[in-house]
Amino acid sequence: MAYLPAQTKGLPPSVVLLLLPLVTIVFAILAGRVVFALALPARKRVPVLDVPLSPALTQDDGVKTRASKTQDLLDPKRPGYLQCYDPATSQRLGEVPIMTAKDVNALVGKAKKAQAAWAKTSFDERRRVLTAMQHYIVAHMEEIARACSRDSGKPKIEALLGEIMTTCEKIRTVNAQGEAWLKPQYRTPGPMMMHKTAYVDFQPLGVLGVIAPWNYPFHNLYNHVISGLFAGNAVVSKVSEYTSWSSSGYFSDIIRSALVQCGHSPDLVAVVTGLGEAGTALVACPDVDKIIFTGSPGIGKKVMEGAAPHLKPVILELGGKDPMVVMEDADIEGLVPMAMKGAFFNCGQNCCGVERFYVYESVHDRFVAEVVKRVAALRQGPPLSGAERVDCGALVMPRQVEIIQGLVDQAVDEGAKVAVGGKPHPGYPQGNFFQPTVLVNVTNEMAIAQEEVFGPVMTIIKVPDDDDATCLRMVNACKYGLGSSVFSKDAARALRLGQQIRAGMTTINDFGVNYLVQALPFGGTKHSGFDRFAGPEGLQACCLMKSVVTDTIPFVKTSIPAQLQYPVSEKTFGFGQGLLGLFYEPTWSGKLKAVRKLM
Amino acid sequence: MAYLPAQTKGLPPSVVLLLLPLVTIVFAILAGRVVFALALPARKRVPVLDVPLSPALTQDDGVKTRASKTQDLLDPKRPGYLQCYDPATSQRLGEVPIMTAKDVNALVGKAKKAQAAWAKTSFDERRRVLTAMQHYIVAHMEEIARACSRDSGKPKIEALLGEIMTTCEKIRTVNAQGEAWLKPQYRTPGPMMMHKTAYVDFQPLGVLGVIAPWNYPFHNLYNHVISGLFAGNAVVSKVSEYTSWSSSGYFSDIIRSALVQCGHSPDLVAVVTGLGEAGTALVACPDVDKIIFTGSPGIGKKVMEGAAPHLKPVILELGGKDPMVVMEDADIEGLVPMAMKGAFFNCGQNCCGVERFYVYESVHDRFVAEVVKRVAALRQGPPLSGAERVDCGALVMPRQVEIIQGLVDQAVDEGAKVAVGGKPHPGYPQGNFFQPTVLVNVTNEMAIAQEEVFGPVMTIIKVPDDDDATCLRMVNACKYGLGSSVFSKDAARALRLGQQIRAGMTTINDFGVNYLVQALPFGGTKHSGFDRFAGPEGLQACCLMKSVVTDTIPFVKTSIPAQLQYPVSEKTFGFGQGLLGLFYEPTWSGKLKAVRKLM
Repeated sequence: MAYLPAQTKGLPPSVVLLLLPLVTIVFAILAGRVVFALALPARKRVPVLDVPLSPALTQDDGVKTRASKTQDLLDPKRPGYLQCYDPATSQRLGEVPIMTAKDVNALVGKAKKAQAAWAKTSFDERRRVLTAMQHYIVAHMEEIARACSRDSGKPKIEALLGEIMTTCEKIRTVNAQGEAWLKPQYRTPGPMMMHKTAYVDFQPLGVLGVIAPWNYPFHNLYNHVISGLFAGNAVVSKVSEYTSWSSSGYFSDIIRSALVQCGHSPDLVAVVTGLGEAGTALVACPDVDKIIFTGSPGIGKKVMEGAAPHLKPVILELGGKDPMVVMEDADIEGLVPMAMKGAFFNCGQNCCGVERFYVYESVHDRFVAEVVKRVAALRQGPPLSGAERVDCGALVMPRQVEIIQGLVDQAVDEGAKVAVGGKPHPGYPQGNFFQPTVLVNVTNEMAIAQEEVFGPVMTIIKVPDDDDATCLRMVNACKYGLGSSVFSKDAARALRLGQQIRAGMTTINDFGVNYLVQALPFGGTKHSGFDRFAGPEGLQACCLMKSVVTDTIPFVKTSIPAQLQYPVSEKTFGFGQGLLGLFYEPTWSGKLKAVRKLM
Repeated sequence: MAYLPAQTKGLPPSVVLLLLPLVTIVFAILAGRVVFALALPARKRVPVLDVPLSPALTQDDGVKTRASKTQDLLDPKRPGYLQCYDPATSQRLGEVPIMTAKDVNALVGKAKKAQAAWAKTSFDERRRVLTAMQHYIVAHMEEIARACSRDSGKPKIEALLGEIMTTCEKIRTVNAQGEAWLKPQYRTPGPMMMHKTAYVDFQPLGVLGVIAPWNYPFHNLYNHVISGLFAGNAVVSKVSEYTSWSSSGYFSDIIRSALVQCGHSPDLVAVVTGLGEAGTALVACPDVDKIIFTGSPGIGKKVMEGAAPHLKPVILELGGKDPMVVMEDADIEGLVPMAMKGAFFNCGQNCCGVERFYVYESVHDRFVAEVVKRVAALRQGPPLSGAERVDCGALVMPRQVEIIQGLVDQAVDEGAKVAVGGKPHPGYPQGNFFQPTVLVNVTNEMAIAQEEVFGPVMTIIKVPDDDDATCLRMVNACKYGLGSSVFSKDAARALRLGQQIRAGMTTINDFGVNYLVQALPFGGTKHSGFDRFAGPEGLQACCLMKSVVTDTIPFVKTSIPAQLQYPVSEKTFGFGQGLLGLFYEPTWSGKLKAVRKLM
């Protein structure tokens, strides 16, 4: 461990000479990985999708069009419909139906029917559909980013990196590795069953019910559609009432087009729009085999409660309050850009955003000075306003502005200090803008250090005496446990602390890369929920897991030894004892005695 | 597939010659497996346990001692205590405390404390504890079987095979393979993350809360103690109020002794006795990290509902209505002994017992004649009555006799016919005896073909026209989906049908062996619950699954490309598009264009 900091100061030439071949080999392997991934050709001709684009997707920039005075979802003049807005400008985008339980059940019924045929398709056919989507997405990054931006107020670059890149990487990973993940897994049978073949099969589960949040309207829909379809399922996704315009419109058109162009039923993927009733109906619907919920712990509890009477399995991906630990020997200049992304990417509306910065005492002031300078320079505004030089966009939910204000004000009352920001942006009252904010003098007990903020607030907590144990105690004194990251030049020390953080994910000396390794499972513990999506675990969670036992050799079959068959005799118990002794007696003499009993 | 039946008629000599080396190799492998498993030596000296035995465990045989008039759990003269009885004789065995929520929380608190130290033990240390248990169990099969028999009314041989053998095999499997199952699993990072090392870690979860049923008082306790302890957890198990005498007494003494003798805190495993309040408290206790429930769907729903407000993960192992399919070409003589075990083992009180026999029309009458003859010859009675020649014992719950009678009577009303049995045993009114029963003329719609009987009833349904598709439809028209078995001389055909049975487990040409392959996950779907115990899945389910990302080479770190850092510029989006194009453009020309954009 001690050699790590030394390296940065320059190594003696002898060590460099020794390391050189090793480093060359490692780099060759890494380069090989890249070439392999890049060179992966399209296996088959896939249809080119043609999805109609409405003017709102391509032309107007939101600021120039007439804005609504509110962002009320319900318009008394339009009963049965949800109104859709650009949260940065309050421009009205359109409306979507408020589906009833009956509507939801009808969609699920059709999906179930379509799934019966889909379950029989080969992995090649499924890859073809996903590849058709992938090609379309790559060719239309601009349009998709624009639609995300329009519907959720984020700058296009955040849609590109946060929604499109993650989706592309997920399709790539599932197409490349998914079949291997769903292959039957053979298991070693015990000594008694040595004549058997035992394996675990992964079969399509049926219809997945997804309830998705509004922070990533594109990715949150595609995420489960990709794994759900690949595993042979239909997917019915209840999208958020705040981002239904893009999710149920353009984004689901792409999926439908891919299915139809590849010759499959478009009913396989259905998007549900509406309010609580629609979500409740999805959870209760007897034809939905599993629920994947992403959202708040409060609604998560209700989903689990609603699933209980139907004995329906649920995956809960709830909130996070992810810590970033900055040790005293960390590379502050190197990590500050990541810290900035951790706090302000997607305006802080990330389940895995950094909500608590634990900065060791001796570097605390330096860190604060650096981020204050940078945060003060961030430009905020409606992201589609022409110049495309907006760093931070709007919040999706209008009332989120008040929630964040409340938490910041309470923190200030309790002794925290606003170093930057701390208020709604005065320049754009027609949008949901809260300024990028830095809060210092925060203690671990304040609400802002315990409750999920889900906004552009960098909350900095000083770790006294640069002490790892104190830091760990503070980090773990939190009801959430989703992601975490630890920065130190001593990677082993960082990992040691990271391993003890009670969370589903830990990254050392980096931020946010966990989700770009789509072969890793994603999920948390404590109030961050349970079970996983992504990775083999996530794909297998979309399956019926089935244990199968067959005879290895057709003519070697089991029969129950005559002594153990009905009717039993005085000798039966002794025979059984002999059998167990043979297998489980710890000594040879014990086994011999057992054999004598068997005779 | 066609060659399989041919083999039974004798193969041409040329084929035999060709097969001979193959068969020899396969047999050598199988023999190797056995030798390996048998020769496994004790790795370390393990302490020899000394557990005191009460007279009830070793001497009396139940029939000779004074029986109570009832088996009432509550005695008004003994408030705060549950009364324990031998269900075959109503002999009173003792009493156990009715624990309150406060008692449960205190036990969990101690367990949590003990777990903090246990989580740091090595796998060697954990294996040592389990091996000490294993040695004791093998040396005391007689005593353990007797205690099971006394407390749950089953013949000792059924305790030996159903409780002790399964437990020994579980300890053997977990000790042999568990460490490999919990090793970090390395994952392939995508092309963007090629400089990273990504893996999944399995860490101790904390305190497991187990709610166990009464059908296997020994195994149901040890099952989760073995995997829970091996994974580094504490285990608090609420045992059934019907079998608390053995579970909370002798059986937990063995565990406690193993822990203490190996130098660990006995608080690591706690047994909770009591009624609903104790179970509810365990589910609600904030220090319990996960609930593993085995029992009825009705209580399963309540457990899940109770866990929801605490966002606590639950594994539900609920009932089963397992089908056994007997095709027209099956080896009837060979399978009848298995069918008998499937229906009558443990008096039918198995979640994986066979509750529906689907017998193809052309062999139906032959099958019925064979089983009727054998069932009529079964001898039933108090299993510890000296002679030890009892085939079927008592039911654990007094009221189960009435429940079974109700289902049988209803079936008869609806047109079924009792071929054997059908009534409580007239000879033993002081015990819970229902006669081994064969029901024919049963249709798939009758309650007896749909509701779990959990008793010694062989329910036979004729499959018209020997038709696989009809059979599959009937088999799957059931709310349960736990185990299943299919018998045919054409193993491929049997597997084809078996694969389509909507269940968590399928065995071809055998019964009950799934659970003896402890490397396979155990669990079901639909109203049989979700998630798995046993196998790597079951062991990993006792862990906190954690995704970790580190730098592969210390001096190759990620930094955010300057173009993507804050503040963004007019070129940022184009750079991002270039980056995505490089990785995800499907053609070389597309990738080249993307590279140009990056420049």
